[in-house]
Amino acid sequence: MFIKIIDARIKILTFFFFTTFISINAQNINEKYHLVPWPKEISENNQKHLINKDFLITVNDIDNKRVLKATTQFLRRLSGRTGVFIDKGFTEIITTDISPSLLINFQRAGKLELYEDESYQLIITSKQISLNAVTDIGVLRGLETLLQLVSHNKNNFFFHGVSIKDAPRFPWRGLMIDVARHYEPIAVLKKNLDAMAAVKLNVFHWHLTEDQGFRVQIKSRPKFHELASDGQYYTHSQISEVVQYASDLGIRVVPEFDVPGHATSWLVAYPEIASKDTIYEIERYAGIFDPTLDPTNDKTYEILDDVFTEMAPLFPDKYFHIGGDENEGKHWDENKKIQKFKKEHELKTNHDLQTYFNIKVQKILEKNGKIMMGWDEIFQPDLPKNVVIHSWRGRESMISAAKQGYKTVLSKGFYIDLMLPIKSHYLNEPIAENHGLTNNQLSNILGGEATMWGELVTPLSIDSRIWPRTAAIAERLWSSKDVKDYENMLNRLHTVSYRLEELGITHIRNRDVILRNISDNQNIKSLINLTKICEPLKAYERNKGGKEYKTYSPFTLFVDACNTDAIDAINFNKTVKMYLKDKSKSSKETLINFLDKWVLNNIEFQEINNNPLLKQLTSFSLNLAEISTTIKSGIEQSTFSLLNYNKSKSLLMELKKPIADTELAIILGLESLIQNFGKEYVKS
Amino acid sequence: MFIKIIDARIKILTFFFFTTFISINAQNINEKYHLVPWPKEISENNQKHLINKDFLITVNDIDNKRVLKATTQFLRRLSGRTGVFIDKGFTEIITTDISPSLLINFQRAGKLELYEDESYQLIITSKQISLNAVTDIGVLRGLETLLQLVSHNKNNFFFHGVSIKDAPRFPWRGLMIDVARHYEPIAVLKKNLDAMAAVKLNVFHWHLTEDQGFRVQIKSRPKFHELASDGQYYTHSQISEVVQYASDLGIRVVPEFDVPGHATSWLVAYPEIASKDTIYEIERYAGIFDPTLDPTNDKTYEILDDVFTEMAPLFPDKYFHIGGDENEGKHWDENKKIQKFKKEHELKTNHDLQTYFNIKVQKILEKNGKIMMGWDEIFQPDLPKNVVIHSWRGRESMISAAKQGYKTVLSKGFYIDLMLPIKSHYLNEPIAENHGLTNNQLSNILGGEATMWGELVTPLSIDSRIWPRTAAIAERLWSSKDVKDYENMLNRLHTVSYRLEELGITHIRNRDVILRNISDNQNIKSLINLTKICEPLKAYERNKGGKEYKTYSPFTLFVDACNTDAIDAINFNKTVKMYLKDKSKSSKETLINFLDKWVLNNIEFQEINNNPLLKQLTSFSLNLAEISTTIKSGIEQSTFSLLNYNKSKSLLMELKKPIADTELAIILGLESLIQNFGKEYVKS
Repeated sequence: MFIKIIDARIKILTFFFFTTFISINAQNINEKYHLVPWPKEISENNQKHLINKDFLITVNDIDNKRVLKATTQFLRRLSGRTGVFIDKGFTEIITTDISPSLLINFQRAGKLELYEDESYQLIITSKQISLNAVTDIGVLRGLETLLQLVSHNKNNFFFHGVSIKDAPRFPWRGLMIDVARHYEPIAVLKKNLDAMAAVKLNVFHWHLTEDQGFRVQIKSRPKFHELASDGQYYTHSQISEVVQYASDLGIRVVPEFDVPGHATSWLVAYPEIASKDTIYEIERYAGIFDPTLDPTNDKTYEILDDVFTEMAPLFPDKYFHIGGDENEGKHWDENKKIQKFKKEHELKTNHDLQTYFNIKVQKILEKNGKIMMGWDEIFQPDLPKNVVIHSWRGRESMISAAKQGYKTVLSKGFYIDLMLPIKSHYLNEPIAENHGLTNNQLSNILGGEATMWGELVTPLSIDSRIWPRTAAIAERLWSSKDVKDYENMLNRLHTVSYRLEELGITHIRNRDVILRNISDNQNIKSLINLTKICEPLKAYERNKGGKEYKTYSPFTLFVDACNTDAIDAINFNKTVKMYLKDKSKSSKETLINFLDKWVLNNIEFQEINNNPLLKQLTSFSLNLAEISTTIKSGIEQSTFSLLNYNKSKSLLMELKKPIADTELAIILGLESLIQNFGKEYVKS
Repeated sequence: MFIKIIDARIKILTFFFFTTFISINAQNINEKYHLVPWPKEISENNQKHLINKDFLITVNDIDNKRVLKATTQFLRRLSGRTGVFIDKGFTEIITTDISPSLLINFQRAGKLELYEDESYQLIITSKQISLNAVTDIGVLRGLETLLQLVSHNKNNFFFHGVSIKDAPRFPWRGLMIDVARHYEPIAVLKKNLDAMAAVKLNVFHWHLTEDQGFRVQIKSRPKFHELASDGQYYTHSQISEVVQYASDLGIRVVPEFDVPGHATSWLVAYPEIASKDTIYEIERYAGIFDPTLDPTNDKTYEILDDVFTEMAPLFPDKYFHIGGDENEGKHWDENKKIQKFKKEHELKTNHDLQTYFNIKVQKILEKNGKIMMGWDEIFQPDLPKNVVIHSWRGRESMISAAKQGYKTVLSKGFYIDLMLPIKSHYLNEPIAENHGLTNNQLSNILGGEATMWGELVTPLSIDSRIWPRTAAIAERLWSSKDVKDYENMLNRLHTVSYRLEELGITHIRNRDVILRNISDNQNIKSLINLTKICEPLKAYERNKGGKEYKTYSPFTLFVDACNTDAIDAINFNKTVKMYLKDKSKSSKETLINFLDKWVLNNIEFQEINNNPLLKQLTSFSLNLAEISTTIKSGIEQSTFSLLNYNKSKSLLMELKKPIADTELAIILGLESLIQNFGKEYVKS
């Protein structure tokens, strides 16, 4: 009966959608509504739906746990954000005698599998909000959009009157978290799952084993968690807790057990399946290491079978990730028995040997009802066609896999651990021009995943490495290909990023915690200013040579308080560009303000500079103040002596050097100014 | 063999302690070292133990999990705080060929029970730090002291060279957390256990059931968690996880299942054991409610037996808290069957009936090897002598129980939910003068517990309600009776409080999260200034009549960003006192600075005042600016017109009213100034 009512409603609403609402210029809309990811279709009316104590939600199926939990959370977040004491704290069943504020209809419980329907339709008028979806998962996606539409004037909170029809572009939109290099407590994972749901990501890829740790309890093989985890592992019940939590949010969980390389921890527990007879210890550094499972040893498959067979039921998702990356086969080359085995089995290369291994592993997974997934390196046309190739090295392998009928997921370009700017990830379009794929082959490109590799993050800093950049990636994977105006997205992202605080994400609040730590709780204003122009060293610069940071080195320092896209740097560099173009009074004033700020900042910094942790910022702060003074004189006096020119250049050289594992992000602006002065004022 | 080595070492060290160290004036020492709680004996040398990459810990028993985990955490915290890349990330066994930085010796694993030895001895010289203790728990207490001794000059971090002999005054030093009014996730409990350990508390009292929720999974009676928890309960494995976590920190866990009152949630699950035949729903308000278990019904004891028998093995502690408070017996009075039962059993009062109930409950607990504990109300000389009386209503009942041979724990005066100033808790000496107890009776007073009742706290705010005040209570319970210099403690507390951030305690960082929420992420400087003079309404004023806040009302507002002991208010009130006494230039200047700050603050506040959530602060901010202007003119001109006098008085009247559930904490200072002006300048 409900289905009938829904159908009728949808018809009426669809009619309403296309007749009553006035679609306005898209550019206007996406400046006004801070939605991330941007929906497929949106139009607006001029109405507002007020939020007051009588706010009430009804739903057509009150027994659906997913919707019930999501609507309860929705009410708490709405109340927390608006301060409205909402009278009814829980959702009710649709009845004819009450007219709710938010009316939710869906047809069925969604399944947590690839291609499940996540679409929804949202219509907001002053009288009522209706949210319709095929599945409960669609309802969840719609509720997140609705929460992003909360606004206010001076007197009231309200929802903007809009109509939205939405559905994802890609079915696989993931975030990988590496909990092996640094263990992350359940609570960290849960709040990140909440944040994922807030931006409509639907796959949590859980990277569970590495050289640096084996993070899962294996009851049949307890040596794994007992010897190879430093006591930091998830029990079966904790895994189930996370999987259930994700399921409630409409998020699939794909576990990864990385083999045969990246597997030191496996060999700490079971050295008998190693390719080299030596003593194994948990790896403390970051890098690529030689320890590798022995693919010629039956015991290896026995143990893999035990592990995967025990894990399979804990992870109900069909896909199971076996890693397979960065095995350089050094220990294979050194092992005569393995060399002999290769010859006997006509395996020419180590890649062939790894494929031999993969095929055996795939059989174990198949037996357990799982589909194998692995990084680029596993790709080999001998593998069954349902295997998923996870592309991290380049887009070519993705295209090539798709062409040969393999499904693929893209992570190249979504490596958030590299501390690259938001823009680089946002504009990382998975399907580039001239791909040469048929439509059928195109559909093999399932989507992408942001990858949070764990070498340099701890619970204190991980949120600031994932957010807000992952929200930009979420938009790339959910929204249409033509939604790619970076500046516009940035504006929307600003709001959505700080709203993540309500889910407990600590990317904003923990900056000051770190700065208080390194300054012994003194006035941190000058340090905050420095974080606004310093960015963590990019790519693998921070861990040069793989020797600097151990897993237990301090991640509580200045660099950990910094983030990509340093705000003052962005604005300063922009201002320089404008000033050099127009030499206007306003851009000149803004420039001078920045320069003054950094001169004053050095004075304030020196007042608190009595701590060994601040020592490495001392000369930087001073140089920054000096170059600011010099450049300011150039701007103000419209003249620049050769002395000042040379002084600036040598200060710039100093400022280009790494500063406590960060880099100064205003170099570009400073350099342009100095070069310009050189051209305009300094006559030879 | 190790024992012998230890004994020899202790002898040598003890000799060293009393011969080499020069004891200096105690007042000096407790200004110099920011230790909370203050140790029993401390003396200093003039040495420093430098902290560098070679810092190494060795211990005489490497298989002791408690010490191993604690020393690992110690190394992480030391490294995180100092930024030193310590080479050895884990503790090693004592050998003759290495000379460690920190040498730990203990005799045996401690048992988690009342009266266990927690003493330790710590000797720090430039060459080595030695930590000796009878039990591993003593080692943990010593490690926390050592971390509080980390200091630095401009170039280095070091430990202060001191010698400490320490042991607690009371054996029972607890924190109760009510997770029933508002559920608190495991992660919140764990970090609070860390913080408890940091200030040497040793009992976590876990208040698990209430009118508002039943927070534990009962496998034999699943209706409890299924119907009476809103899905927010701890599973068996989660309980074990918390108990194990606490055990690793040397903290006992005492569960509380509150019966027969405060038990609405029990009756939501099992209405058949209620005293009144009605429909029960989970309570959403705060207050005292009538639903009560039926003590005349056999089924009641059957269910209690099921619950307690299932719970007993999960909580290894000997003590088991049954609540027993605030049963007003209304439903007993209304029930004819119960009235008849009372007559038949010659139970004159409801208190007699409750004692009848308690005796039966005590038998169930005894059968499970548990000792019963309950609030004041259970006290009755018919109970076995090992029952513990938890005193919350007054100290008289504690004295009286102790006199009659019952052990008692004090919470009266330690109700941290009432948002009373630190001082009131700190000076709440458990054993008042003229107690009239023999030494034997005195020993029945086991200690005390801070009680974090949960009506007005959520995970966002709970840390700021517990900390730093609970650290002051911890000192009251650990340190000698004569350690009671409030100002001196406050100075030490300041450091220890902000150091709790390193354990993840959010009492400092979440203030700004809340202020960003209510200001839509605008500049929160003016709001921060207001939190420095506004304190949450005290006692039960915020929830007047028990009608205002529901469990799901918003706790994300201005009041939730405020705390007791508002810092600017304390300093302003002090300055006023000084100014009125000495009229010095410096106190006058400080006063004017405060007044100017509040005038300027209003301008800055009005700039962001475009949000309904700030509306209730508008007139307050304005009135504050006006009274500041008026008073400033009085101070500067040394004259005060009758007009200004009356204006100030009427503004003061306004400012005395609650402001968004807070109260202005500078009223005292303002009032003194105005009164003084009235006397000095305004002539009638």
